[in-house]
Amino acid sequence: MSAADAAAFIRPGATVGMSGFTGSGYPKAVPQALAERIRREKAAGNPFRVRVWTGASTGPELDGALAEVDGIEFRTPFNSDPIVRDKINRGEIEYLDMHLSQLAPVAWQGVLGPLDVAVVEVSAILPDGSLVASSSVGNNKTWLDRADKVILELNRWQSEGLHGVHDIYYGTALPPHRVPIPLVKPDDRIGQPTLRCDPEKIVAIVETDGPDRNLPFSPPDETARAIAGQLLDFFAHEVRKGRLPANLLPLQSGVGNVANAVMSSLQDSPFGDLTAFTEVIQDGMLDLLASGSLRMASATGFSLSPIAAERLNDEMAFFRERIILRPQEISNHPELVRRLGCIAMNGLVEADIYGNVNSTHIMGSRIQNGIGGSGDFARNAYVSIFMTPSVAKGGKISAIVPQVAHVDHITQDVQIIVTEQGLADLRGLSPKQRADVIIANCAHPAYRERLQDYDRRARRDSYGLHTPVLLNEALSWHQRYIETGSMT
Amino acid sequence: MSAADAAAFIRPGATVGMSGFTGSGYPKAVPQALAERIRREKAAGNPFRVRVWTGASTGPELDGALAEVDGIEFRTPFNSDPIVRDKINRGEIEYLDMHLSQLAPVAWQGVLGPLDVAVVEVSAILPDGSLVASSSVGNNKTWLDRADKVILELNRWQSEGLHGVHDIYYGTALPPHRVPIPLVKPDDRIGQPTLRCDPEKIVAIVETDGPDRNLPFSPPDETARAIAGQLLDFFAHEVRKGRLPANLLPLQSGVGNVANAVMSSLQDSPFGDLTAFTEVIQDGMLDLLASGSLRMASATGFSLSPIAAERLNDEMAFFRERIILRPQEISNHPELVRRLGCIAMNGLVEADIYGNVNSTHIMGSRIQNGIGGSGDFARNAYVSIFMTPSVAKGGKISAIVPQVAHVDHITQDVQIIVTEQGLADLRGLSPKQRADVIIANCAHPAYRERLQDYDRRARRDSYGLHTPVLLNEALSWHQRYIETGSMT
Repeated sequence: MSAADAAAFIRPGATVGMSGFTGSGYPKAVPQALAERIRREKAAGNPFRVRVWTGASTGPELDGALAEVDGIEFRTPFNSDPIVRDKINRGEIEYLDMHLSQLAPVAWQGVLGPLDVAVVEVSAILPDGSLVASSSVGNNKTWLDRADKVILELNRWQSEGLHGVHDIYYGTALPPHRVPIPLVKPDDRIGQPTLRCDPEKIVAIVETDGPDRNLPFSPPDETARAIAGQLLDFFAHEVRKGRLPANLLPLQSGVGNVANAVMSSLQDSPFGDLTAFTEVIQDGMLDLLASGSLRMASATGFSLSPIAAERLNDEMAFFRERIILRPQEISNHPELVRRLGCIAMNGLVEADIYGNVNSTHIMGSRIQNGIGGSGDFARNAYVSIFMTPSVAKGGKISAIVPQVAHVDHITQDVQIIVTEQGLADLRGLSPKQRADVIIANCAHPAYRERLQDYDRRARRDSYGLHTPVLLNEALSWHQRYIETGSMT
Repeated sequence: MSAADAAAFIRPGATVGMSGFTGSGYPKAVPQALAERIRREKAAGNPFRVRVWTGASTGPELDGALAEVDGIEFRTPFNSDPIVRDKINRGEIEYLDMHLSQLAPVAWQGVLGPLDVAVVEVSAILPDGSLVASSSVGNNKTWLDRADKVILELNRWQSEGLHGVHDIYYGTALPPHRVPIPLVKPDDRIGQPTLRCDPEKIVAIVETDGPDRNLPFSPPDETARAIAGQLLDFFAHEVRKGRLPANLLPLQSGVGNVANAVMSSLQDSPFGDLTAFTEVIQDGMLDLLASGSLRMASATGFSLSPIAAERLNDEMAFFRERIILRPQEISNHPELVRRLGCIAMNGLVEADIYGNVNSTHIMGSRIQNGIGGSGDFARNAYVSIFMTPSVAKGGKISAIVPQVAHVDHITQDVQIIVTEQGLADLRGLSPKQRADVIIANCAHPAYRERLQDYDRRARRDSYGLHTPVLLNEALSWHQRYIETGSMT
């Protein structure tokens, strides 16, 4: 069926569950056709907006196209599209920023309402009707099970070698029927290689041939390499202390250039026989697999540069033995993250002197992307690490502030903070002890003395001295940035 | 051995792991003897402080006595003792406020340093050397396994009927050796009834005969009953919608008068065949067991009034068939809370219009007690409920504020907020939608219009409009309280 004909199944006000996770495996034709239809309907005076659920971020053909025609009323659980972001921050799209492990169970719980249509990209439809997922699994299992109608995009661009990479676990349930998830190693396969779907529900199959949103990564700069170096020293120290095995523990790595740099630096490190239990496989992790340092990686999707995507497809025979893609409720499941003892490495927007972390809100009110899986991993990790350059915007923003303007990760869930300046090991420390270490080790020299000054005065003048705060001043750095364009 | 002789095994600077959880099962004689010894040493000019780890809160004979002589250098993971609280807030004790599920695994991880001495109350020592825990299990398993030396307090006051109530699971491990915890119902027994301890390590056994810190509960007032009523209506609504089974799901209930009122009100409700998977059994839960509405309760300790404690001991033959006490790493384990789908009900200090919850810090800096198990339960619950009177201090403090001054629970982990004014169901709502519901349903009329006014101006003037914030004003209610004694 044509994408336009398929899009006709989606009605104004519908809730649509789309595939896609960090720019991989999202539908490309139907959302664009839907956007075109919305544009036409609106021109004819008919309001038309939809509610969009996905795995995580998608690509311009989905979020971008729909947002451009003001077609999104509600968006969950994650977004990184610039047009959508802009509309969220202008108050034009309602956005529910969720823990990525939780959307599937919450959708089953029924509190988000019914799911009218699923639009899911697949890489193959097998003779028995089962579906081979594409370059991400995300929430596809749940969308296919929950939706009233299903539209499939069969994307010929995706590698045929993906068949067998996926591990779809069908053992989840609502309480009181939940049972232990039988995974004890990152490389355990606990499900089946394909997605199932009631053929009665499939209203359209659309053939496509377009690449995922593969954006080039900038090569690691000096700052990213310095952060990676700090982290490698820390790992070596923990191994020497007997607190980490020589092959570490399963790695989780957030998305971004710093995370990518850490993966790259592991390649030249003494660490081998590594595993990953993470959301997303980036370039650095692919390189690490190729070099043999990383034995295998479990994730729910890819986020690759065009070159790495080509390499993956070319060398799929090699990689498919070393990669498992799972539903995101499994890749990010708190039970599994805790059991495996993941080393969680995530980025941040800002941290405060007590180790609260803001991962999402610029100056407390403008959403950047979303909390993603960072909460799933940070609270349950064996070691929870957050990493960031110490300044942003050419020094105008300090990543270490007196008080974060929004909290995504509370101090209890933040054990290590790393900047290019140094590493703060916060484990076992009280709030004031944490402030000492974070300011001394992580803050940029341009801001360090001002943080020390704030800290000194807070310890003198605060209402309580457990977590000293000067309420009049705690958020003043952010206000200054808004007013003057700089925190300095 | 006398308590004084036993206390001599504890040296200045030692780390001591004590039993005790919410005022039950803590050692009573040795800590007082230790306090006396510290007093004498200090009088002689010898500095003497110790690092104290427990299950959670203890009693005046432990925390109070040690704090009175300035004998505590460091305290984790929870405190509710007024003398300790005061010293923490004067900056005289370093306090590490932890998720209660996490201290045991972190202690094994080794980052908190060695555990020199365990001081553990038991209710019996069996002929084979195994130990019957007392009225709480807490972290005792871990302290007995980890400590270099062990001091036991054998408390004759504790009921002999406690033997068989405990379920001590010895299947935990450090990664990569962790396996699924084989519990699928609150009433599953997965361990053994007694604690084990290497007899070589036991340096002292002290006999005692004193009651736990059993404080009277005030009977539920009108506010507490109104909150309970809201909650019961919500449960009935969810059952009608098919989102909760008729016997609900395992209940978790925080400690306090409002929580107790909710338990009491369940007694006169249509709900039966209930179960609890919680930290602590309070009076209300005991009544609910007695009435038969609650089929069984799993916890790690008690927190009872003197009358309820007497009733428990008198009717132990009845209650022991219906109660299981587990190590707190199990009673609060994220894996189990998620699997069982607990209904989490916790108190709060304040919530903001977006549903961030502060459970711990008065005016952002003075610690009240600690996060306790609320984080273990709230993030993993099937329904995460926070409840509070809408005002405190006779109306001078609003429990709903523009921005919380400290965050313990992020909006993603707060689904329902209940005050005596009403209930806000935040599931599936974006930040601005949450603000509408929280202000309308939960705020006290004396503060409602001012919150609406703030919200209106924030939606007009905020830097970003995803989560509108007026940084200059967000914490001004707290500052006003500090300066004038009232938020009005």
